[in-house]
Amino acid sequence: MTRKKNSAEDFSLSCPIPKSEYPHVLLAHGGGGKLMHQLIEKVFLGAFSNPELDRRHDGALLDLPPGKPAFTTDSYVVHPLFFPGGDIGKLAVCGTVNDLAMCGARPLYLSAGFILEEGLPIETLWRVVQSMRQTAQEAGVSIVTGDTKVVDRGKGDGVFINTAGVGIVEGGRRVGPEQVRVGDMVLLSGDLGRHGTAIMAARQGLEFEIRIESDCAALNGMVQALLDAGVEIHCLRDLTRGGLTSGLIEIAQGAKVQLDVQESAIPVCDEVRNFCEVLGLDPLYVANEGRFVAFVPAKEAKCALAVMRQHPLGQGAVQIAQVVKGTPGLVTLETPIGTRRILDMLSGEQLPRIC
Amino acid sequence: MTRKKNSAEDFSLSCPIPKSEYPHVLLAHGGGGKLMHQLIEKVFLGAFSNPELDRRHDGALLDLPPGKPAFTTDSYVVHPLFFPGGDIGKLAVCGTVNDLAMCGARPLYLSAGFILEEGLPIETLWRVVQSMRQTAQEAGVSIVTGDTKVVDRGKGDGVFINTAGVGIVEGGRRVGPEQVRVGDMVLLSGDLGRHGTAIMAARQGLEFEIRIESDCAALNGMVQALLDAGVEIHCLRDLTRGGLTSGLIEIAQGAKVQLDVQESAIPVCDEVRNFCEVLGLDPLYVANEGRFVAFVPAKEAKCALAVMRQHPLGQGAVQIAQVVKGTPGLVTLETPIGTRRILDMLSGEQLPRIC
Repeated sequence: MTRKKNSAEDFSLSCPIPKSEYPHVLLAHGGGGKLMHQLIEKVFLGAFSNPELDRRHDGALLDLPPGKPAFTTDSYVVHPLFFPGGDIGKLAVCGTVNDLAMCGARPLYLSAGFILEEGLPIETLWRVVQSMRQTAQEAGVSIVTGDTKVVDRGKGDGVFINTAGVGIVEGGRRVGPEQVRVGDMVLLSGDLGRHGTAIMAARQGLEFEIRIESDCAALNGMVQALLDAGVEIHCLRDLTRGGLTSGLIEIAQGAKVQLDVQESAIPVCDEVRNFCEVLGLDPLYVANEGRFVAFVPAKEAKCALAVMRQHPLGQGAVQIAQVVKGTPGLVTLETPIGTRRILDMLSGEQLPRIC
Repeated sequence: MTRKKNSAEDFSLSCPIPKSEYPHVLLAHGGGGKLMHQLIEKVFLGAFSNPELDRRHDGALLDLPPGKPAFTTDSYVVHPLFFPGGDIGKLAVCGTVNDLAMCGARPLYLSAGFILEEGLPIETLWRVVQSMRQTAQEAGVSIVTGDTKVVDRGKGDGVFINTAGVGIVEGGRRVGPEQVRVGDMVLLSGDLGRHGTAIMAARQGLEFEIRIESDCAALNGMVQALLDAGVEIHCLRDLTRGGLTSGLIEIAQGAKVQLDVQESAIPVCDEVRNFCEVLGLDPLYVANEGRFVAFVPAKEAKCALAVMRQHPLGQGAVQIAQVVKGTPGLVTLETPIGTRRILDMLSGEQLPRIC
């Protein structure tokens, strides 16, 4: 079955609950009765069908290969639901797949919990679900269990999605802040700020002038390529809310080390840089949904970068920082003019509901 | 550590973010910055602390005993957040624990995803989180990974919670609709309708006159008692949205059998029956959060009932139906006057946002 890249649109033609029947989600669609069963049957089973889901029991039984199971969850409340480069469905699969990948795990199974607002067009839900189906297929994960709730109009915002994920860490590997060592190099998988600015542009109705696409993508393929190449990975972190800065500070604190970052090494494309300048945003704090940092021993950095650059999502990979003894928890930035300043976490976020 | 049954209240005194500092949830609490870290640190880690959660990585690594892993999820949007006999936090733990138990699994780990509405009093969140902590402790499960999102005022409703759960099915057991056999007996663990009517009474401001408490409870202890006693269990189902009727019809359809139910055998307490009569509700369709049906071979029914009745939550256990060949998917009800009618699923639910 071949399918175009942006196929959520194509599927909308074939929404299995015709507009003439139920154009919108009703409170009764969450009530446990016939309408809920129709929604599950036609929309969710129609899209995600697999033997475990099709059993329609209260939970799924999993086949797990040998290794240490990893478990994670995220809720997605992004606004708007559709944005250049993605939508809430793609985000809900990629985000949780990425959290598993950042544990050094191979993502295998997802759950999906939907909180729908009364009045949501069923066709919108269908587009979101088709996007989840396609993204899950590309990332190699199965959606094996789920749940639907409906809240009254004005008590939600179209659709919120929670996904939880189960994966497996093979070969006794440990990847995490506690594995970071002084001397490690910090590699960044690509340029920063696309997701946050794409959302911001879409909210302002500027998506056609600005032409920035979200970097939203599943990163498990690139992480697996690093593992398959035998690269020794100490820590991984995807750079979502709070951007690069929050990710680095969290790891510096968790690992009780100092990180020295080189600003000139950090790639930011012109469109993102200009858009950020106009709006007074700092790309180092803007959320990404398809970028991560890898902490590796210095001797592994060259090989790791080569592997990352061979992957379609990692062509812009660069080394941006190193781990030094210094002050535990401190992250410093060497500016292009050679001065050094301390990177601090923002109090909140520059953009709410980014994911 | 001894703790009173309804202790969510007691903890509110010690909410770790004082009112004078941040009385309410702000959008910034979901932003990935300092405020979010403070919320995670003080409220969530403060309540749920365990080695995996304390690693603060993107996911948790699980210790799973031998067996088949089970995986499930549910979102909780109950309104109001607090009701006689429970609250959204207790419900969010019990509901997912019960879904695992209904797979014949021993529940072990939960994730928790919070969608908070801007303006929610932090003390309310603290009470909910304390209730989750206590319920998880009593049910013997750990909350090992989580997520917090904040949506703008008017785009949510206080707090929505998603929990996903991982458990283990031991001893090669299979429990599910496909295991049901003609001749099986259907046992009900207790009287019906308490949860739905308690919520309804609370919504109408009648909770002090009506005095019905939700049956909300974790059922894994009673299921484990049945398994430990060596009872051969074919299928289990908790009777949430859509009540007893939806649960039975789903199983009759999945198992392709007919179920003949005896109405006179089904226990409903006087308070629930009277309240349902006044409001025109049918207790057979009202949601429960601490009741289940067990399908067992006829020769096991007596022993199973004895085990259930020994458990504090199963003192009212009774046999209510049997599996016959008949028409696949059909559920019939023999009324007290000896006539027989077909039980059909409602279109929606009698009460929205019951869980």
